[in-house]
Amino acid sequence: MEITPRILKGFRDFLPPAEIRRKELVRILEDTFRSFGFVPIDTPLLEYAEVLLGKGGGETDKQVYRFNDHGGRDVALRFDLTVPFARYMAMHRNELTLPFKRFHINKVFRGENTQRGRYREFTQCDFDIVGTSSVSADLEIILMITAAFRALKIPGVTVHISHRGIFNRFLQAHDVENKSVEILRTVDKLRKVGADETRQTLTSLTSAEVAEKTLAFIGASGTFQEILSTLESLAGGPCPESQTLREIGEALETLVPPGTVVLDSSITRGLDYYTGVVFETFLKGAEGIGSVCSGGRYDDLVSLYSKESMPGVGASIGLDRLIAGLEELGQLPGDAAAADVLITMQDTALTGHYHALGQRLRAAGIRCEVFPEAQKLGRQFAFAERRAIPLALVCGPREYQEGTVNLRVLATRENHQDLTEKTALETIQRLLT
Amino acid sequence: MEITPRILKGFRDFLPPAEIRRKELVRILEDTFRSFGFVPIDTPLLEYAEVLLGKGGGETDKQVYRFNDHGGRDVALRFDLTVPFARYMAMHRNELTLPFKRFHINKVFRGENTQRGRYREFTQCDFDIVGTSSVSADLEIILMITAAFRALKIPGVTVHISHRGIFNRFLQAHDVENKSVEILRTVDKLRKVGADETRQTLTSLTSAEVAEKTLAFIGASGTFQEILSTLESLAGGPCPESQTLREIGEALETLVPPGTVVLDSSITRGLDYYTGVVFETFLKGAEGIGSVCSGGRYDDLVSLYSKESMPGVGASIGLDRLIAGLEELGQLPGDAAAADVLITMQDTALTGHYHALGQRLRAAGIRCEVFPEAQKLGRQFAFAERRAIPLALVCGPREYQEGTVNLRVLATRENHQDLTEKTALETIQRLLT
Repeated sequence: MEITPRILKGFRDFLPPAEIRRKELVRILEDTFRSFGFVPIDTPLLEYAEVLLGKGGGETDKQVYRFNDHGGRDVALRFDLTVPFARYMAMHRNELTLPFKRFHINKVFRGENTQRGRYREFTQCDFDIVGTSSVSADLEIILMITAAFRALKIPGVTVHISHRGIFNRFLQAHDVENKSVEILRTVDKLRKVGADETRQTLTSLTSAEVAEKTLAFIGASGTFQEILSTLESLAGGPCPESQTLREIGEALETLVPPGTVVLDSSITRGLDYYTGVVFETFLKGAEGIGSVCSGGRYDDLVSLYSKESMPGVGASIGLDRLIAGLEELGQLPGDAAAADVLITMQDTALTGHYHALGQRLRAAGIRCEVFPEAQKLGRQFAFAERRAIPLALVCGPREYQEGTVNLRVLATRENHQDLTEKTALETIQRLLT
Repeated sequence: MEITPRILKGFRDFLPPAEIRRKELVRILEDTFRSFGFVPIDTPLLEYAEVLLGKGGGETDKQVYRFNDHGGRDVALRFDLTVPFARYMAMHRNELTLPFKRFHINKVFRGENTQRGRYREFTQCDFDIVGTSSVSADLEIILMITAAFRALKIPGVTVHISHRGIFNRFLQAHDVENKSVEILRTVDKLRKVGADETRQTLTSLTSAEVAEKTLAFIGASGTFQEILSTLESLAGGPCPESQTLREIGEALETLVPPGTVVLDSSITRGLDYYTGVVFETFLKGAEGIGSVCSGGRYDDLVSLYSKESMPGVGASIGLDRLIAGLEELGQLPGDAAAADVLITMQDTALTGHYHALGQRLRAAGIRCEVFPEAQKLGRQFAFAERRAIPLALVCGPREYQEGTVNLRVLATRENHQDLTEKTALETIQRLLT
């Protein structure tokens, strides 16, 4: 009785070319984060539901995979990497040195409706500096975002930054701070719904005048410092928050190419969680998929679990959304070669010799695989081509006796005959570079 | 109302030093597998329970985390990487080129009792060649196991190999093949329970004579070829299966150092699944923790999902058990440095300068982090030392004006004063090598 092989909606198998690409992206991110002194952590996929969802949550959040385990424990799959990090910091505070810079790249689960670039199992890449309120930490997160995209060789990336504190001052100056949550949510949707609908909603929430000023605030344009002056004047003058942005903007002038980081007060991150600088990151030409790296400064990471206060700043790259964006832009690299060289098999009696050849090539840094069956050479070449392997070695009983090999360049069908192993190795290294 | 930060029993948080080590081990394994032309895949953590457990399994296997999702689907967390691989091959057969060589390194879940080196969430590293019955594939898997442990720089690793087919012939020759499952299970426990108890159980299963011969079979000693001759004579003479072992043994003579791979017919892998060569891998001095890499040849990977037959050979490294073994042997590397250099902060007004310094060091391949607050230098040095960072750069307003920096070697407290940035960079590179 056969079972239909199938997977759950919103979950994915990764075929080798896609998985190779994902692993390469992750390695580049890890190396970038490590170059800034950030260190990796990991946490369980499955946790106590109470720890992930808080006590109040009697009705299960529909997006959360939650169930009772064999021991009757109420457990859930993690739905982000932020809540587990907060729990981690509360538990391990005494084993870690503050300020603590960590990254965490792993899968999270949300049972939400699937759409382009959205899955029920997806990968997040989070990085944070906790235990400090310094502007230097804000700056470092922004620099690391730009460094990560530079390392990934993705052009046309713009980090949009803003400051929740200035926006709050603006709301205070116009006496509408009691509507701050609603106004934040409205402003957060500007990109989606457009200026007209935003104006309408803001007018109904406040007044026509405040709506106009809000649109002027979030639509301020010019250079970084020009926008900053506009915001200051609309928010009642210079303040510590605008000073933070000024310092960040000045430092960035010499640290990143012009236009890489822009001040954009339409970026508010609709969450109460953030209290300071906030940022979103867009791919030029694929703005429609939304921000591929978002984050900001928060006052208190661990409040759910501890009386201790722990400020921090961090961001998260949505790996799946980023890959969807690169695909849309035609910027995903082509399929990687499964190996550099296929060692073909002409005679099973030479199996040991083929593997010895392979061993010597690998020792010279060449990735190679031995074809396991003595099939027709044409089929073995076709196998190599389907796996993007550029070169093939051929060695039959005669060549084995003579201590030689033949080397074939698959793309051009060019053959290098009767090479000594040394010459073959040199030729391979030359052809691969 | 605070929530106690805690994690489920059998699940783990990884602190940075442990996670750095794990990631490094995994990278080395991935690079080794890629050097053999093996390519990575990934599958969902969560699958239809029917797909993972088969149709018959009405009563849930107690080890499996199984539940109903929001859509009422009967789902489960994967408990190994073999079943998902079988499902994957049945689904994607037409998108892949056979023979197919894949590896898969990721987490699996089993609600079993926890013990040393056993967890409810743990990492497996599986690698297989499917779509061929060739001896070359058996040999390649064995070579890749030895190459992996060599790359991991773990000495004293021995691969024990055997062949299920010869054992079956032995059972046939003594007319006890109808007891094969029970005998296999008994033999599989020899290492745990000792020869006496094994003899007793075998005698009760068969006869005193067959019990003795079985112990002689599984205890055969000598060189690879000597053991092979003993097995052949006990199993009724040479056969295709012993010929396979002979070819593997001969090829290995020139491919691996003597003693790396031994013929050991006590290795039977108690599972019905295996049909040919089987192997287990032990760390010298930590045999007690069991095999750290096991596998073998099987006839039919996809039979649960497809009528097609698909033979293969593969093995799995238990990463957690391996790490437990290395820890027991004192072979785990010490804590890695969080960065090469800490750029200390003396004056927040120089924040941009510190980050510019960092950017230039990183461009030269040096990992460095900027301390985010202008704390006392002694505290910043102590911070670096706790994170195993070997060097610190110091730059105050005077040095900034003069275009110099001071470099401190933390272990020796040696100071290099008033270096130009170029000299500092050269000194750092010299000190790090």
